[in-house]
Amino acid sequence: MIEDKNQQRTDLNNLGEFGLIKHLTKNFEIHHESTVKGIGDDAAVLGFKDEHVVVSTDLLVEGVHFDLSYMPLKHLGYKAVIVNLSDVFAMNAEATQITVSIAVSNRFPLEALEELYAGIETAAKIYDIDVVGGDTTSSTTGLLISVTALGVVSKTETVYRSGAKPNDLLVVSGDLGGAYMGLQVLEREKQVYKVNPNNQPDLDAYTYIIERQLKPEARKDVIKLLKDLEVKPTSMIDISDGLSSEVLHLCENSEVGCDLYENKIPLDPQVISTCEEFNIDSTTIALNGGEDYELLFTVDQKDYPKIKANPSLTVVGFIKEESAGRHLVTRAETKIELKAQGWKNFNA
Amino acid sequence: MIEDKNQQRTDLNNLGEFGLIKHLTKNFEIHHESTVKGIGDDAAVLGFKDEHVVVSTDLLVEGVHFDLSYMPLKHLGYKAVIVNLSDVFAMNAEATQITVSIAVSNRFPLEALEELYAGIETAAKIYDIDVVGGDTTSSTTGLLISVTALGVVSKTETVYRSGAKPNDLLVVSGDLGGAYMGLQVLEREKQVYKVNPNNQPDLDAYTYIIERQLKPEARKDVIKLLKDLEVKPTSMIDISDGLSSEVLHLCENSEVGCDLYENKIPLDPQVISTCEEFNIDSTTIALNGGEDYELLFTVDQKDYPKIKANPSLTVVGFIKEESAGRHLVTRAETKIELKAQGWKNFNA
Repeated sequence: MIEDKNQQRTDLNNLGEFGLIKHLTKNFEIHHESTVKGIGDDAAVLGFKDEHVVVSTDLLVEGVHFDLSYMPLKHLGYKAVIVNLSDVFAMNAEATQITVSIAVSNRFPLEALEELYAGIETAAKIYDIDVVGGDTTSSTTGLLISVTALGVVSKTETVYRSGAKPNDLLVVSGDLGGAYMGLQVLEREKQVYKVNPNNQPDLDAYTYIIERQLKPEARKDVIKLLKDLEVKPTSMIDISDGLSSEVLHLCENSEVGCDLYENKIPLDPQVISTCEEFNIDSTTIALNGGEDYELLFTVDQKDYPKIKANPSLTVVGFIKEESAGRHLVTRAETKIELKAQGWKNFNA
Repeated sequence: MIEDKNQQRTDLNNLGEFGLIKHLTKNFEIHHESTVKGIGDDAAVLGFKDEHVVVSTDLLVEGVHFDLSYMPLKHLGYKAVIVNLSDVFAMNAEATQITVSIAVSNRFPLEALEELYAGIETAAKIYDIDVVGGDTTSSTTGLLISVTALGVVSKTETVYRSGAKPNDLLVVSGDLGGAYMGLQVLEREKQVYKVNPNNQPDLDAYTYIIERQLKPEARKDVIKLLKDLEVKPTSMIDISDGLSSEVLHLCENSEVGCDLYENKIPLDPQVISTCEEFNIDSTTIALNGGEDYELLFTVDQKDYPKIKANPSLTVVGFIKEESAGRHLVTRAETKIELKAQGWKNFNA
């Protein structure tokens, strides 16, 4: 929360566009054989052999998707990459390259952009992806980041949203609701900070959920795990908008119904305790919270033995015929129709 | 200049993000065999066989790259696509797919976005490209468009900025400076309109240059022409920032020098007359104006017979050893060192 007002400031006007791109991307190294030419020509050149290329793109807008009063720029850079990689992994693909474009107002000094790119670089290193292009321009107001991610997957291994079939198991990785509750804690601290800027917040009890919000991870490990277990999901999607919205996407694309069991939804103890503190229902948060970047997928029942013992994976329901509808089975064993609340940025 | 204030307005809040994307992209059709899956999954899936994939991305920001007081939204959508295709063609590639992301404030009604997407759709049809993905989100202020274009080129036909060698010819397509002078005319009319909104401007004398600014084209035809003529350029770049800046990019990437002849720079008569009217030197405009989206390339001298008679192509200079430097040879036959002025958006 505490900003150092004395940090060095280099005005972006001193660099010009080419100087800025060169400066910000000078540490980026190329690791993938498929990256024939990265930054520095009209377009990047990639060679993928006879496999499927997957492409995903996302925009993050200041004041809509992030608030710089509690989102450090390095984390923001990291998260902007993660959000896109998550989509690539949701195709069962290996993420290989990204392009990063930013629009930024003159109120940001060069050092701020260096922080942002340090986060991008860290994500690129950890997830082993090449940064192959982008665009840097000024904006009249805030900061905006546009990332496009590319990945590669053999034709027979590509997993769509549309392959789920009746009797398949519905599975999620990790746990849900953490990112949303982390945001609630950060928003509360921001209000406290506004009233008393000298107040030092004690956030120890919220470490996990704040990290889920500020430094999410994409489940590259789950894609590898499924490969190691020799499980090919019948359908898959990443959980960016809340579980209920994503379950409905899978069902709609696969033209099936489902039963989702409330008591199976994986929740971290910190999510439960923070929900109690905020007096919010934790199931509502898991269903509608968003930004967890876990994977939701369906597997054939025959694969159940392969996944059942795994601590990263939880079976949360079953796929049914479309005519059966899409329901949440509550702890009280009543059935409620699933509805997408999700994050509606246009209504926010 | 005249805005119809009574047009129908549908509030974006009534749709939500998924509804909006579905609505705006419902007319987009898939034509390319390489588009395995377009919009509607976590990522687009593309199959390119064993060829090079090229990727290029650009951000267009309201108030920086365009002014909606004279840029109709349909033209803006068209131009946002063209800008990216131009980069793909500059790799000697065939443009095949784009993703389009927009951030937009609530001051825009749905009908405005429909106009924007109508322009995108028109460009996609004319240039035969599939729209395979994107992101739609709200912004706190203006409109921002991020386009990523993909293309494909056989490995032996890929042309970089780096292949020019001494004695190669320096060639440009079309003519230069039109887009910049079109912008000058539009800016002047905007000032007139501010003083007297009832004044109906007579822009007949500026039709060509205004079209160059508002509805530029990317030189897909030149790429085809070169193929038909069996000419593979040794290096190539698109002219987005003005001729001098692009010549220097080619020379730097190829580690060569050059002589660029002022009297060879192709100018449309309307550019010349408008420069006279505005009392600006037309060479300065061609060198530094930007946004022409012509192609600049180098060819081996042996290919001269194949290109010399072509009205779309003009030889404007020669590549030299790097030690010879990079010069403009003026009409008075003096040599001036080439300098990049270009469009420096951070200084604008």
